[in-house]
Amino acid sequence: MANSEFEYTRFFEQTDVLLPDTWIVVRLDGRGFSKFTKRYNFVKPNDKRAIDLMNSAALETMRSLVDIVVAYGQSDEYSFVFHKDTQLFERRAQKLVTTIVSTFSVQYALQWPKFFPDEPLTEPYPTFDGRHVLYPNIKTMRDYLSWRQADCHVNNLYNTTFWAMVNQGGQSPTDAELELKGTFSADKNEILFSRFGINYNNEPEVYKKGTVIYRDLSDTTGSSSTTNPLEGTSRSSAETTSRNAGTTSPDSSTTSPPTNTTSTSTTAPPSKTQLDKERKRKLKATLVAEHVDIIKDGFWERRPWILAGRSAGKKGTH
Amino acid sequence: MANSEFEYTRFFEQTDVLLPDTWIVVRLDGRGFSKFTKRYNFVKPNDKRAIDLMNSAALETMRSLVDIVVAYGQSDEYSFVFHKDTQLFERRAQKLVTTIVSTFSVQYALQWPKFFPDEPLTEPYPTFDGRHVLYPNIKTMRDYLSWRQADCHVNNLYNTTFWAMVNQGGQSPTDAELELKGTFSADKNEILFSRFGINYNNEPEVYKKGTVIYRDLSDTTGSSSTTNPLEGTSRSSAETTSRNAGTTSPDSSTTSPPTNTTSTSTTAPPSKTQLDKERKRKLKATLVAEHVDIIKDGFWERRPWILAGRSAGKKGTH
Amino acid sequence: MANSEFEYTRFFEQTDVLLPDTWIVVRLDGRGFSKFTKRYNFVKPNDKRAIDLMNSAALETMRSLVDIVVAYGQSDEYSFVFHKDTQLFERRAQKLVTTIVSTFSVQYALQWPKFFPDEPLTEPYPTFDGRHVLYPNIKTMRDYLSWRQADCHVNNLYNTTFWAMVNQGGQSPTDAELELKGTFSADKNEILFSRFGINYNNEPEVYKKGTVIYRDLSDTTGSSSTTNPLEGTSRSSAETTSRNAGTTSPDSSTTSPPTNTTSTSTTAPPSKTQLDKERKRKLKATLVAEHVDIIKDGFWERRPWILAGRSAGKKGTH
Amino acid sequence: MANSEFEYTRFFEQTDVLLPDTWIVVRLDGRGFSKFTKRYNFVKPNDKRAIDLMNSAALETMRSLVDIVVAYGQSDEYSFVFHKDTQLFERRAQKLVTTIVSTFSVQYALQWPKFFPDEPLTEPYPTFDGRHVLYPNIKTMRDYLSWRQADCHVNNLYNTTFWAMVNQGGQSPTDAELELKGTFSADKNEILFSRFGINYNNEPEVYKKGTVIYRDLSDTTGSSSTTNPLEGTSRSSAETTSRNAGTTSPDSSTTSPPTNTTSTSTTAPPSKTQLDKERKRKLKATLVAEHVDIIKDGFWERRPWILAGRSAGKKGTH
Repeated sequence: MANSEFEYTRFFEQTDVLLPDTWIVVRLDGRGFSKFTKRYNFVKPNDKRAIDLMNSAALETMRSLVDIVVAYGQSDEYSFVFHKDTQLFERRAQKLVTTIVSTFSVQYALQWPKFFPDEPLTEPYPTFDGRHVLYPNIKTMRDYLSWRQADCHVNNLYNTTFWAMVNQGGQSPTDAELELKGTFSADKNEILFSRFGINYNNEPEVYKKGTVIYRDLSDTTGSSSTTNPLEGTSRSSAETTSRNAGTTSPDSSTTSPPTNTTSTSTTAPPSKTQLDKERKRKLKATLVAEHVDIIKDGFWERRPWILAGRSAGKKGTH
Repeated sequence: MANSEFEYTRFFEQTDVLLPDTWIVVRLDGRGFSKFTKRYNFVKPNDKRAIDLMNSAALETMRSLVDIVVAYGQSDEYSFVFHKDTQLFERRAQKLVTTIVSTFSVQYALQWPKFFPDEPLTEPYPTFDGRHVLYPNIKTMRDYLSWRQADCHVNNLYNTTFWAMVNQGGQSPTDAELELKGTFSADKNEILFSRFGINYNNEPEVYKKGTVIYRDLSDTTGSSSTTNPLEGTSRSSAETTSRNAGTTSPDSSTTSPPTNTTSTSTTAPPSKTQLDKERKRKLKATLVAEHVDIIKDGFWERRPWILAGRSAGKKGTH
Repeated sequence: MANSEFEYTRFFEQTDVLLPDTWIVVRLDGRGFSKFTKRYNFVKPNDKRAIDLMNSAALETMRSLVDIVVAYGQSDEYSFVFHKDTQLFERRAQKLVTTIVSTFSVQYALQWPKFFPDEPLTEPYPTFDGRHVLYPNIKTMRDYLSWRQADCHVNNLYNTTFWAMVNQGGQSPTDAELELKGTFSADKNEILFSRFGINYNNEPEVYKKGTVIYRDLSDTTGSSSTTNPLEGTSRSSAETTSRNAGTTSPDSSTTSPPTNTTSTSTTAPPSKTQLDKERKRKLKATLVAEHVDIIKDGFWERRPWILAGRSAGKKGTH
Repeated sequence: MANSEFEYTRFFEQTDVLLPDTWIVVRLDGRGFSKFTKRYNFVKPNDKRAIDLMNSAALETMRSLVDIVVAYGQSDEYSFVFHKDTQLFERRAQKLVTTIVSTFSVQYALQWPKFFPDEPLTEPYPTFDGRHVLYPNIKTMRDYLSWRQADCHVNNLYNTTFWAMVNQGGQSPTDAELELKGTFSADKNEILFSRFGINYNNEPEVYKKGTVIYRDLSDTTGSSSTTNPLEGTSRSSAETTSRNAGTTSPDSSTTSPPTNTTSTSTTAPPSKTQLDKERKRKLKATLVAEHVDIIKDGFWERRPWILAGRSAGKKGTH
């Protein structure tokens, strides 16, 4: 029973190393979540517990993989962005995607009782699928994130209106769906306001904007403490509350182009010591979850470290 | 904030549909398990609780995906085989791999307390990575499984000997490693027997052979009940015990070629009703976990339904 | 100007090694040939010179790559089949495809004057594109070839009828096209016979069946001489004429399954000497171009060496 | 003989659409050219006829594919760069690569007699293989071209020295090779000068720099005439001679970064009419072949149209 007789089968595995110098987005989606959310009585249109759980699982995922520079989530989906320079797992696609999927899934399942103490987890169990997408430059990668945030807004406005019509207006789901067909944003805002006294602008930012997570490297003294969402989400919640769009109005006042954020002035590649130091700094950095606009340039310009290259060497510039 | 402005970014996602008519193997491996097993005090060389947990998670994974026809696991790895005819998720690679990884990971994490009641799960959390491999025919796919089972044997013999030398013989790990370097199977058997009175052949089959899982479709009356590993592993354990190699000696007596198992005699493709019926039959079928030889033809010949095509149509024959 | 400063760019090239143990089909198609054929006054519906040129270029391509076991061509397309065991160019996809495209294109261009002595080659020059397709087993690979031959028949029947209506019947192309829309084979046969006295069955086999090329290894004494299409196509033409379907009637009388053709009885992998010997035998073998049915089993059963494995070892069986 | 019975085999072909917004380089290499060059008595170290033929084939290839923005060749290799915005053949990899390989190969074969009037083309016939490489931005794409030009210099210095030692110095090839092993550029320059009176700097630019081809869009009045290499290479040769590095000294005096060359100021995507107009302008533009430095920024800065986007729309910026 020699091992070598069958070992040739290992050569059927094909390499899936991703193009260098390219941004890697890994996106997760809940599997069968329309059924799942019914089974566990999710509040409609938005269940705060569920969103908090998604964010907490994402925080933990990002904490365990320092090469993820930013993440964005809404509804039952989450996107994780690896810096274009990442060499994690030699950039093997399946390794990157499955590691994120596994980490996120386990966190979601294990943290469930904290967020849904009254809903014991039995069948169906929560699972997520994932896939990667490559973006060759900052513009297209940011446009992807903008697409997801625009999608969040469009869906949330629709869902908020639909469920107001059903829950408060007493319309049947079919009837509400029919009436909303073909309407524009202005129409939905009008329905919300005139019929139900709801000003959509006053809806919680977390539902309108989704959640963006990044490392706070602004404080160069590095006195940050790591958030541990497993010890409760109070800190995370407090943080995100205090960082809503209302308190970050400067976001819309900036004008310079976002690609500036990657400008690098030194030319020598980083030493091993520098990389280790940078890695430790990231490990210690506070992870911040915010519900703010990431479509305009402001968000990125005020946090230039998010997309900054870790090196200014040959391969590290944009 | 029109959605369409950014929607072009969706076209950066690339298709990953796998070659039709080809066996798909998805293999999971525990991430960082040498550290993980130390942290949770796994018994060496084999921890029965850990193996039972792996098998229980695999059973649940297979139960949720009826297109998996057979699975094989050992140590911290598990391989799941999709029939070459599967159309699940349109054969998209990442969808197949991440669904299995997510399902398995969640089951492993959630079932942990049942198997490790004295080891609360904190950091590090268990995670798994995964990848797919294609095999164009039964021979190469079976050779892959044989490779994994041969690997199981080789590793287990080594580990059994190594830990006997360390735990019972009082040798240092370094010393034991040095002495074992370059030895053959016979040498290790001799060390085990002469020094520690251990007859390797009498070691538990689950450690020597690993675990194969399949649906028991032998009983055509379909009176089977589904195993539910979440309700405890007693049934699974009992079953596997009673199905050890010792009780399946006919395995080694067969001679006819394995490719016969896919011979199909009808020619019409199955109707929608037939497929639904077959699906239900599989859902209801008992999942069996055994610790037997899967390298020789006997295993496959006595369970011809495992690799049998679900149709005899154009695309279904080998 | 150190070389190494820029050499990192070589790592952007991605591997494209094709799945082992799988049949590789490389198919070429003429680029812009509807315009090309008008420019050089190709006879409609079939131009014997053009078909002979395609076949001559294909013969030369096959002669230069002994790993191609069979080729099939019709109209402005040609398919080349590499044996599933081929290790040529380490099975790199682009290397395989571009080598065939380059060889065929050069032959087509250089041999042009022999087949079109009255049509000097200027702009547009003939070019071909190509792509590979994998087939995991003989059945699907043969079905691919059957698809192309069935396509040849369908197109030729249509074109023969269409051009008879236009050239002999004096109908306008638009009018002929309209009348043929939605007609069945029987209708077209009827039009040909009743209006133009043409019995489609009597049309030349080369137009109805296309051309299959293979090495004649039936004569084990190996006294064969290589056809050199560059020295004129007389031999090839003579050969193909004498091997038309009319003279190969046994083709339709066989019944046993085609997969038998790969049955191998020995078990040891071939030695280096054996492989060299086999290679030389193939280099010396006569290349045969025939216009016969390759859909039924007969063709393959009477030439079992075409698809036979070159070895009976581990990786060589089906 | 229904077509549809076998048509399923078309679904075995897998898509190979290349990542959008990414530079596509297609590189050709002569197959077996060390043997080929011996057979046709190529002059060593450089055969002017062979280089001129390569350049003439490349000019014709570029002329037929206006989406190629620049090409670079040396020895028996040529690299063609498609703009990152190209939608040619829907960016299908094999279609792009084989079209270039086929076009170039045919031109090389057909133009052979003009460049080698005394060497009739028989066996072996010239063939080329090809592959694509993706570069996500201008920097990496230009670094690729720099790599090839640096390689040209390194090889040419070596070959010039080696053949001087053999042809003029009377050393055996083995002896010359041994002596050159481990030498630096300075050593080779010294050998050339002290032993053979050769100042390497005075060697022809075409051998030291290779050849870059681009469209001359500098003259906006568009009065250009297309070079037709098939009518003889005199124009091309004259042009390249007059554009040698010696006459383009400003190349080394520039300092601003190359990425500026793609800056676009307008924001509306181009209209269909604009694209057609631009296409016609390119078709009419003179193709220029030069032997100049393309590693420094100067070359690119003085010809900003080469890498300029054809649109300033969403997907067109870098």
